[in-house]
Amino acid sequence: MENSVFVLLIEDEPLILLAAQTALEDGGYMCLSATDGHSGLKLIDENIGKSVAVVTDVRMRGHDGWHLARHARALKPDIPVVYTTGDSAIDWPVHGVPNSIVLTKHYAEAQLLTAVSQLITANPFVPASATPSAHQ
Amino acid sequence: MENSVFVLLIEDEPLILLAAQTALEDGGYMCLSATDGHSGLKLIDENIGKSVAVVTDVRMRGHDGWHLARHARALKPDIPVVYTTGDSAIDWPVHGVPNSIVLTKHYAEAQLLTAVSQLITANPFVPASATPSAHQ
Amino acid sequence: MENSVFVLLIEDEPLILLAAQTALEDGGYMCLSATDGHSGLKLIDENIGKSVAVVTDVRMRGHDGWHLARHARALKPDIPVVYTTGDSAIDWPVHGVPNSIVLTKHYAEAQLLTAVSQLITANPFVPASATPSAHQ
Amino acid sequence: MENSVFVLLIEDEPLILLAAQTALEDGGYMCLSATDGHSGLKLIDENIGKSVAVVTDVRMRGHDGWHLARHARALKPDIPVVYTTGDSAIDWPVHGVPNSIVLTKHYAEAQLLTAVSQLITANPFVPASATPSAHQ
Amino acid sequence: MENSVFVLLIEDEPLILLAAQTALEDGGYMCLSATDGHSGLKLIDENIGKSVAVVTDVRMRGHDGWHLARHARALKPDIPVVYTTGDSAIDWPVHGVPNSIVLTKHYAEAQLLTAVSQLITANPFVPASATPSAHQ
Amino acid sequence: MENSVFVLLIEDEPLILLAAQTALEDGGYMCLSATDGHSGLKLIDENIGKSVAVVTDVRMRGHDGWHLARHARALKPDIPVVYTTGDSAIDWPVHGVPNSIVLTKHYAEAQLLTAVSQLITANPFVPASATPSAHQ
Repeated sequence: MENSVFVLLIEDEPLILLAAQTALEDGGYMCLSATDGHSGLKLIDENIGKSVAVVTDVRMRGHDGWHLARHARALKPDIPVVYTTGDSAIDWPVHGVPNSIVLTKHYAEAQLLTAVSQLITANPFVPASATPSAHQ
Repeated sequence: MENSVFVLLIEDEPLILLAAQTALEDGGYMCLSATDGHSGLKLIDENIGKSVAVVTDVRMRGHDGWHLARHARALKPDIPVVYTTGDSAIDWPVHGVPNSIVLTKHYAEAQLLTAVSQLITANPFVPASATPSAHQ
Repeated sequence: MENSVFVLLIEDEPLILLAAQTALEDGGYMCLSATDGHSGLKLIDENIGKSVAVVTDVRMRGHDGWHLARHARALKPDIPVVYTTGDSAIDWPVHGVPNSIVLTKHYAEAQLLTAVSQLITANPFVPASATPSAHQ
Repeated sequence: MENSVFVLLIEDEPLILLAAQTALEDGGYMCLSATDGHSGLKLIDENIGKSVAVVTDVRMRGHDGWHLARHARALKPDIPVVYTTGDSAIDWPVHGVPNSIVLTKHYAEAQLLTAVSQLITANPFVPASATPSAHQ
Repeated sequence: MENSVFVLLIEDEPLILLAAQTALEDGGYMCLSATDGHSGLKLIDENIGKSVAVVTDVRMRGHDGWHLARHARALKPDIPVVYTTGDSAIDWPVHGVPNSIVLTKHYAEAQLLTAVSQLITANPFVPASATPSAHQ
Repeated sequence: MENSVFVLLIEDEPLILLAAQTALEDGGYMCLSATDGHSGLKLIDENIGKSVAVVTDVRMRGHDGWHLARHARALKPDIPVVYTTGDSAIDWPVHGVPNSIVLTKHYAEAQLLTAVSQLITANPFVPASATPSAHQ
């Protein structure tokens, strides 16, 4: 567990959550997950320090994914974000954060793995610590 | 005028507005400008259809630049945005829109010209019409 | 099947076709395939509306891959294209379409999966419909 | 002249040719120009060896810009290409060459200068010699 | 073996070497490996001609990874390089080569696969031959 | 002076130094310059804290440009670097630092301005302070 590379995964459809988690774990990531916006906020607050990316559904009860991503960035400004959505990609230019990726459902597992991996790789200095940092 | 390439410029410090306008016009752009957030919103509403980019200060009376950019993207989702700021670059990962650039004051004129030009160039299909489009 | 992410795969060497199809399916894509240029053209005509990418060999009987890619782009201007070739990479700067990738055989499976996935991800607004769109 | 950085400029509207030439020369480039597709082909044949970029209008008598660019790439596969067009940007994904840029008229001078400069810079190994090279 | 896509892998921790090799082989690459800087240098000298990428640990006995990468580039200037490191990412801007990627341990397998694959894909003309080439 | 955007410029040919300085100042940058490797090292040591980029010739007496860039990065790891060279571009993949650009002489003024501006813009968080930072 000490060497795990944590990804925060927030998704309220159980089957999609399971598929995303399986894909990420097949790629060697360790997922910490939540199934609605409220528990997603809590998940971020408690685990962002040790995590390297956030994957969040956009439409959810409680807080939507746009809000969760801004919250995560406020705590760790350079954390990569992948939004997944069935119908809200059109709002990404308005509500998304910079340097994020939007995946339109239904996406292939390889798209999720590549999106997460290339965002982290493009940003090799994301510190896996709880200290917020303003550097990109 | 018919062939003009319009850029919307919102900046509340007169000297910086003048310098930015001069730099953009030296590069062949035609500026339409506003000097606070409220008139900036009106400027966007009335002119975004024929414009190819928005350059906005972040801190202003009325509405801040983060808000203006989201408003502009809601009308024209693929319009390039350049934020200029003395002290708010740190908030860009949280409040900025995707595919935008932040310039920290005091920037050189060439930085502004290059930033505007490369964002437009990266996005050659920004239609100079008022019809919103969801395509990037 | 309803949720499938379709990739059009045109390749005239059966063993390579099989390897590519297996790699793409392992990554969660659903392949629709053809084994020469003529059937490739038909495959594109009938299925491009629901597909997110084209992977095509360059040298084939009937129509070569350069032609197939232009045909696909004429129907759906923003569809990602991956060319695979043993000896024609040198012609890509002349005959390739913009925003495409060329893979030189023999490539690793991960190269194909990453190439397809990053092209789709860079272009999240490819509509999975038959309506041609001029937006990038 | 010995130190000149040559750009090949093909444009059939005299006023636009003049404006483009002035912009490029203000940026320190030396222009060699032609005013239709036939003389453009000759211009390329005779001068591509010492040139670092091609800027071509798309619609012209004789040969169109898509053809000229392919001809230039066949002689020097890594030469940067900028297309300028009033109405053919929609065809760029189909007929353009890879690693090229399309500018929609009416563009600002700074867009042309930035487009040419960033394409050359992205490709620092374009040899200013007549020897074709297959490397990107 | 004739169709293998070779990656040179230099890593002095046996468990990490094994994990990296497994990940790369799962992605379809064939690894040639060495476990310290001296044998890494020899591995590069003897096999770089047929290889498409170098993955090297940074801290090792003999020669460090910064040195190995420069040595590899001197023989084959356009070969992609991925550095892996537990604590030396901070030195990458100083000691790394251009167009390389640094992965901070502990990375997920998908990060390694994506990093190697996207660097090779971005550079489709890496000739799998022993002839050094200055082109990027 | 208080608002100046400083660029460090090291070049041992007086006419080229003058041309580069004029181009950068036309673009709104303020140049601090040195004319050989030894004084370049001193220039960097004393002024890198307030500067946003380094432009250095490669071949010089004292220390070459490769060395100067590494020295600058050791003090400020995210500072953009532009190398200018008549004949050493071939060594950039071996001796250059990551995220740098090489310009082959004789370059146009617009190439220099665009190269400096786009590197700074891509890196909006370069702090204009003497505090080294490991973030990219």
